[in-house]
Amino acid sequence: MVAEIPGFWAVVPAGGAGTRLWPLSRSGSPKFLHDLTGSGRTLLEQTHDRLAPLTGDRIMVVTGAAHRDAVAAQLPGLPADDLVAEPSARDSMAAIGLAAALLERRGADVMGSFAADHVITDPDVFAAAVSAAVDAARDGWLVTIGIEPTFPSAAFGYIRQGDALDGHPDARRVVEFVEKPSVPVAEEYLATGAYRWNAGMFVVRPRVLLDLLAESDPAFAAALRAIAAEPGRLPELWETLPRIAIDHAVAEPAAAAGRVVTIPGAFGWDDVGDFDSLAALLGDQGAGTILGNTELAHLIESSGIVVPASGRMVAVIGLDDVVVVDTPDALLVTTRERAQEVKKVVAALKDQGSALI
Amino acid sequence: MVAEIPGFWAVVPAGGAGTRLWPLSRSGSPKFLHDLTGSGRTLLEQTHDRLAPLTGDRIMVVTGAAHRDAVAAQLPGLPADDLVAEPSARDSMAAIGLAAALLERRGADVMGSFAADHVITDPDVFAAAVSAAVDAARDGWLVTIGIEPTFPSAAFGYIRQGDALDGHPDARRVVEFVEKPSVPVAEEYLATGAYRWNAGMFVVRPRVLLDLLAESDPAFAAALRAIAAEPGRLPELWETLPRIAIDHAVAEPAAAAGRVVTIPGAFGWDDVGDFDSLAALLGDQGAGTILGNTELAHLIESSGIVVPASGRMVAVIGLDDVVVVDTPDALLVTTRERAQEVKKVVAALKDQGSALI
Repeated sequence: MVAEIPGFWAVVPAGGAGTRLWPLSRSGSPKFLHDLTGSGRTLLEQTHDRLAPLTGDRIMVVTGAAHRDAVAAQLPGLPADDLVAEPSARDSMAAIGLAAALLERRGADVMGSFAADHVITDPDVFAAAVSAAVDAARDGWLVTIGIEPTFPSAAFGYIRQGDALDGHPDARRVVEFVEKPSVPVAEEYLATGAYRWNAGMFVVRPRVLLDLLAESDPAFAAALRAIAAEPGRLPELWETLPRIAIDHAVAEPAAAAGRVVTIPGAFGWDDVGDFDSLAALLGDQGAGTILGNTELAHLIESSGIVVPASGRMVAVIGLDDVVVVDTPDALLVTTRERAQEVKKVVAALKDQGSALI
Repeated sequence: MVAEIPGFWAVVPAGGAGTRLWPLSRSGSPKFLHDLTGSGRTLLEQTHDRLAPLTGDRIMVVTGAAHRDAVAAQLPGLPADDLVAEPSARDSMAAIGLAAALLERRGADVMGSFAADHVITDPDVFAAAVSAAVDAARDGWLVTIGIEPTFPSAAFGYIRQGDALDGHPDARRVVEFVEKPSVPVAEEYLATGAYRWNAGMFVVRPRVLLDLLAESDPAFAAALRAIAAEPGRLPELWETLPRIAIDHAVAEPAAAAGRVVTIPGAFGWDDVGDFDSLAALLGDQGAGTILGNTELAHLIESSGIVVPASGRMVAVIGLDDVVVVDTPDALLVTTRERAQEVKKVVAALKDQGSALI
């Protein structure tokens, strides 16, 4: 059973280009606007579905001005005041910090940030972890939910956990955040049992977050609070904000100062970074997985992922671990192993001034 | 210099489904109607271009009734009398035999049959071979142009040549026609130097061809001559004709009887049987070859053949010897090695009653 958590707000940063999911994801229609799991719901909608039982209608979405209408269309129940449009992309500290400043003025007790484009299985386990994180955050901690790693990924950052925390049986102190490791280093991390994936899920009192930011960059925190006090100043002040991730601006220095704890998250999680991870997520088991209308794909002795998203028939013969993504104006053919390199195509198209990115 | 050959007619059978070139080739739009070499001319147009210098306007095309209008559109100069529509497909003996019967009545001296969907390089060498073949045919021989094999193909039938022929320095007697061999057997053939590829190019007096047919199947030859005498009987008599290839009906028994000679053809030739042979023909040299608008394809560390025939952008990353054929309503992704198996997809679609075949 999932119970609503009083005074708890979810902040959903809906950003990122998702260039490694081209041609499905485009700069004008990023990953979070797409149904990448064949569930009938987009990643943004799924994120909202997952959070609403915990927050009721206390959900704030922060997105680029270009995507504001698309977000509003997918979340028709979201009040206009809770849909914040960034004039330009200025990384996660500005986005989440602005939400914190707005929520601080509204008297929100605790907030949690959850990206709009991640996939989570086991929503009940997720809800329990969020609930425990909110409990710790009420005591003034910056709390991060650390995902239990299931394989030595080189694509995610890690959280190194330390001692237990009195009064919060699930919580552990965070020793440090570490950048994406190599696979051998990730294997060492997993062997110690002390490392968890950093999914960017931060649960914290808005005031605590802004005060932590103010310790390293007082002007940044002051500008965010000034925008919240006087929203008309957003266009003017926004462009002065540093482009920095919340991890670097707040989480890492706070961890070094012993002010961060982590709650273990034993649920399935993926940031769907590329078609390789999407294939794994959808359970490509040697016979190939089809995202979309299965009647539009003929796979003969093939494995990998096929996305027939143009309405056309897609036939694949004798290719293992293939990636075929068919959209109305662009087609991608590669392998799961090379899926990261899709960004090379996007870069080449950008250089050519192509409208297809 | 290519000179017109007096009294010589070219017969162009334009048939065959070309299912191994799906989705480019369809039952409603077979291989010969397509530009498969990126020359700007279809295979049918190229065949006509190649023959016209030798025949002037003495070219007769035999095609299925369903393709009559498409053939007429591609060859606007072809007189209606020289475009013969078969009521149904009844294999090559009926098609070429009907042309022979029609030409016999018109008093044609020599005819040569040349498929509408083959690719030939070196048109001057081809012309010289045809000219020598016509010389031998005027002496009453059934003459076949035997292509000099360039590799031990298991996809073609072979001609085994014997002694030289007095009076025709290039000609050799044909000992036998042999069916498609295995690659090791083909290697043995090539080692002897006595074998040539059978490209189905038969040059012969119309009367000789029909008389040879009459020796094995008098009713067949009589029916063809009856149609030629009374074209109104075509629908009625056509359905009575045996479905048999000219090779089995005439060429093999005539060779056994010592009545066939071959002229060597030292020109490049391919029947473009599948996308593997098309890739070889277009010179896939490790960097990949693009048939069509090269601006519509991005190949990154890939080889094989890409056909961007839908107007969409096609990006391929990290796949060797790949085959990607992109058409407005269907997409094929396979490898050169598996290219033959495209017919499996066509068979599956046919079973489903799909309109895409």
